[in-house]
Amino acid sequence: LDYQHVQVPFEITLWIMLASLAKIGFHLYNKLPSVVPESCLLIFVGLIMGGIIYGLNDRSPPVMDSDIFFLYLLPPIVLDAGYFMPSRPFFENMGTILLYAVVGTIWNVFGIGFSLYGICQVKAFQLQDVSLLHNLLFGSLIAAVDPVAVLAVFEEIHVNEKLHILVFGESLLNDAVTVVLYKLFRSFCEMPAIKSVDVFAGVGKFFVVGLGGVLVGLSFGFTAAFTTRFTKDIRVIEPLFVFLYSYLSYLTAEMFHLSGIVAIISCAMGMKRYVEANISLKSHTTVKYFMKMWSSVSDTLIFIFLGVSTIGENHEWNWPYICFTVIFCLVWRALGVLVLTFFVNRFHVNTITSKDQFIIAYGGLRGAICFSLVFLLPDFHRKKLFIAATTVVILFTVFIQGMTIRPLVDLLAVKRKMESAPTVGEQIHIRFLDHLLAGIEDISGHWGQYYWKDKLEYFNSKYLQKILLREYDQPKSSIVLLYEKLERKHAIELAEAGQLGHGPPHPSLLNDRIVTAEQKLEDTLSPEVLDNMKEILARNLYRIRRTGPAYNRHTLPGESEPTEHAQELLILRHKSL
Amino acid sequence: LDYQHVQVPFEITLWIMLASLAKIGFHLYNKLPSVVPESCLLIFVGLIMGGIIYGLNDRSPPVMDSDIFFLYLLPPIVLDAGYFMPSRPFFENMGTILLYAVVGTIWNVFGIGFSLYGICQVKAFQLQDVSLLHNLLFGSLIAAVDPVAVLAVFEEIHVNEKLHILVFGESLLNDAVTVVLYKLFRSFCEMPAIKSVDVFAGVGKFFVVGLGGVLVGLSFGFTAAFTTRFTKDIRVIEPLFVFLYSYLSYLTAEMFHLSGIVAIISCAMGMKRYVEANISLKSHTTVKYFMKMWSSVSDTLIFIFLGVSTIGENHEWNWPYICFTVIFCLVWRALGVLVLTFFVNRFHVNTITSKDQFIIAYGGLRGAICFSLVFLLPDFHRKKLFIAATTVVILFTVFIQGMTIRPLVDLLAVKRKMESAPTVGEQIHIRFLDHLLAGIEDISGHWGQYYWKDKLEYFNSKYLQKILLREYDQPKSSIVLLYEKLERKHAIELAEAGQLGHGPPHPSLLNDRIVTAEQKLEDTLSPEVLDNMKEILARNLYRIRRTGPAYNRHTLPGESEPTEHAQELLILRHKSL
Repeated sequence: LDYQHVQVPFEITLWIMLASLAKIGFHLYNKLPSVVPESCLLIFVGLIMGGIIYGLNDRSPPVMDSDIFFLYLLPPIVLDAGYFMPSRPFFENMGTILLYAVVGTIWNVFGIGFSLYGICQVKAFQLQDVSLLHNLLFGSLIAAVDPVAVLAVFEEIHVNEKLHILVFGESLLNDAVTVVLYKLFRSFCEMPAIKSVDVFAGVGKFFVVGLGGVLVGLSFGFTAAFTTRFTKDIRVIEPLFVFLYSYLSYLTAEMFHLSGIVAIISCAMGMKRYVEANISLKSHTTVKYFMKMWSSVSDTLIFIFLGVSTIGENHEWNWPYICFTVIFCLVWRALGVLVLTFFVNRFHVNTITSKDQFIIAYGGLRGAICFSLVFLLPDFHRKKLFIAATTVVILFTVFIQGMTIRPLVDLLAVKRKMESAPTVGEQIHIRFLDHLLAGIEDISGHWGQYYWKDKLEYFNSKYLQKILLREYDQPKSSIVLLYEKLERKHAIELAEAGQLGHGPPHPSLLNDRIVTAEQKLEDTLSPEVLDNMKEILARNLYRIRRTGPAYNRHTLPGESEPTEHAQELLILRHKSL
Repeated sequence: LDYQHVQVPFEITLWIMLASLAKIGFHLYNKLPSVVPESCLLIFVGLIMGGIIYGLNDRSPPVMDSDIFFLYLLPPIVLDAGYFMPSRPFFENMGTILLYAVVGTIWNVFGIGFSLYGICQVKAFQLQDVSLLHNLLFGSLIAAVDPVAVLAVFEEIHVNEKLHILVFGESLLNDAVTVVLYKLFRSFCEMPAIKSVDVFAGVGKFFVVGLGGVLVGLSFGFTAAFTTRFTKDIRVIEPLFVFLYSYLSYLTAEMFHLSGIVAIISCAMGMKRYVEANISLKSHTTVKYFMKMWSSVSDTLIFIFLGVSTIGENHEWNWPYICFTVIFCLVWRALGVLVLTFFVNRFHVNTITSKDQFIIAYGGLRGAICFSLVFLLPDFHRKKLFIAATTVVILFTVFIQGMTIRPLVDLLAVKRKMESAPTVGEQIHIRFLDHLLAGIEDISGHWGQYYWKDKLEYFNSKYLQKILLREYDQPKSSIVLLYEKLERKHAIELAEAGQLGHGPPHPSLLNDRIVTAEQKLEDTLSPEVLDNMKEILARNLYRIRRTGPAYNRHTLPGESEPTEHAQELLILRHKSL
């Protein structure tokens, strides 16, 4: 037996296997995941595992290594999040998200830091040795909402898109703030005296860390898109580039102390549309599925490790400090959301309701990022207290808030996500309105989001697509792509149902019928609007309508259609012969 | 700048990136890969890289770590090979493959070892200090044909399936022999005296290492299949199990000093059909594409590393030893193939032609396995000579033989692979003949391969499928699965060409036409044979024939069809109205 030789890969594989099997186990009992979020179950499995290891070895089980977390477990999740980010709601609510992520997080850090410092001044609690700087450092790591935890819970409760993107976007973008504040306070802790210059440098760093991350991400993203222009002959390694470049963007950002999370998200969002157009359909399926699979495994491992790491002797228990930490986390977040939303609502027509505000405040879950950051703290005599407080906050938010948020969403009747994807008609209208609003903004001289979006789109189609897309002379509009996707899906469904080839009779007949259908439409709508729509519909969409029996207000589908069909056919054929 | 922190993943990612970009680079110039095999180009890139590193650092570039090779680079390639192994030709030629792999490799090991020992006795060559055991040890690592190198070259030259499987199967299965002989001679080298007991133990080990590998692989494979029974609710992690279990089988086999290659191949071949039936279509696409991608990257990295590791000061040059190694490798392989094939041909009707024999002998490429094994040798004063000889043999076989084998195949007019997949009709006939031959073997009392195949199939459908498949009560026959796949592919093609829904007119009409077509068939074929075929065809296949214009000996497709069609339609409609 030669275990040493294979130890590293063997143990990694076994951990992943355990995580996957745990996941399968939960889903075998359908009732369980509908009540308890998976993240809670996984932490619970981790706690049991940790208890077993602790019991057998009589020493603390190994703690999740911060390096492993930041270098290997976090990137897949963030990449998945960035790649599948619904870009429209994200950019529409960008201002609000940034406000929550930057101002809200700073508010929380200082709120929690100062009020915990206040608690430390109470003599009865025996905490006078915890300085203000240490409290602020602790505040900076405990304040940030965790994307992994938020995603795990919010994916299951299906709130409306705007609410989801507000909480999730905040949790992603606050990384830049967390990185800056955490490193700032950490270096302050080690400095003998703090000059005001350092504080100003810290403020400047926000921009460097955030915008630097965006820049690194976008440059890697565009390079990835450019690389996939040349993979036509070796389809098999196409998916690799998506992963390689985004991972490189993360590592490069981390190397320069920029925000890796922001970088990988920019990279994923930047490359997505070009890569999708360049690579083959199967490569894209592989990318999508593998990304989902990988992030799912990372997620599972993180929660299990969280559980395992909780067990052991790393904790120093101090009731008042820990309880007040939990309370302050809740209170300051709630206050922050209330105040910020007040300002946001003053400038928006589509306001954030008080129900939504409650869910935003309540959805501020903490997770593995806090946990890794607290273990990365330099050694000082109260580190174990901080670890204990962080663990309690994480467990409290994931278990109590995570398990009650679904019933609360039901109870408050928070607006849910639309289950179905937008129809082709809706898509056309959204497009149309976008152009209209861009025009209105242009005329009125207001440089709003539609104006910029239009400019960006112009820049994209004029320059970027020519460089980054393989077949840049025929850029397909998104509606044609959507149509192709629908057609393909439909074809597969037909084939699987065994009904391929049972379509309506003959293309020439179809065209006749389309003309009559369009004449009817023209009677009811103004001809100017129809011109553009007709072209799109005639070129791309008539076949979708043809594949099933055409909709008719007076007949049930498939009822009187066939005979009507046959008669029409007979008449037409008579004429032609 | 904090490079240390991200060094390991950053450098790994950069190496993979380099390898992928090199691959893209070659394929940009279409002429290059058609003349020079990719493996040669990659080694060349590696040589240049190694030269640059050597020039800049003024010391030998890092050598490919044997652990990294055996634990991380080799398994993906072997998994890919096993998973996509054409099982029918493999099992049909199992006896021949085993003969080449076991007897052939032993023949080569002892042939090369003893004749090199003979060379060492020549005083002029100054090699008298190389003992017989060391020569045999060297023989054991240089004799084995390398699957990675064989695959890289044979995938490009498209020889017929039997020839391909003979060379490739041998290169995979000789791993067990190589492992045993290499470890045996290595331990003999360190022993003070060799007893005859040790020799017999060595012979016994063949069976343990080979059959143990098969056992480990099959048990992991069946566990994997069993696990995928329960993944219906979490499709997203399905592909993971294929990779995890096969990797575990490899590691477990390595841990117990069994043949990891044999284990992973058994695992992949054992699980494939059950896993495919259990997991979703998209998961399967992901598995297939990811496997191909991964093995392609591993392959690329191996050849680049081979090139890089060649540069440096690890070599001791001795003209006679190195030249005679190359000559003996060629001569003993040629002799071995000739002798073994003579015996094989005596017991087979479908013999191996002399052209095929030449290609088998000539296709005995050496690669990264030899290279890793020679670096794993214990330190002794002639190790550098062995490294030099191994490097030369690898470069000679990959460059000279790899580059000339394609012109030779053309020159000799070796039978090529059939480009198209077997038609449905062919598949039905193969099936039918299998049953027939199994019956004949049963009656004649000869327990041949068809008899065992039939028994295995019975055992599979009676027991294994019930345990391993999710929907075991409705096992789909392979022909129905094939049909579904064809239909799906066809549907996608139709959708992409924009012709969905342009099928022939009406199902009721179709049925009439099918009946007439089948009557014609019945006139020409005996009715007994038709019974079974008709059922299958009528249930599954008529729609395929319907989607295009029906084949007619007297008209070109699509020529007179439409009007004929319309007339027929008119007549039928007249009647029905």
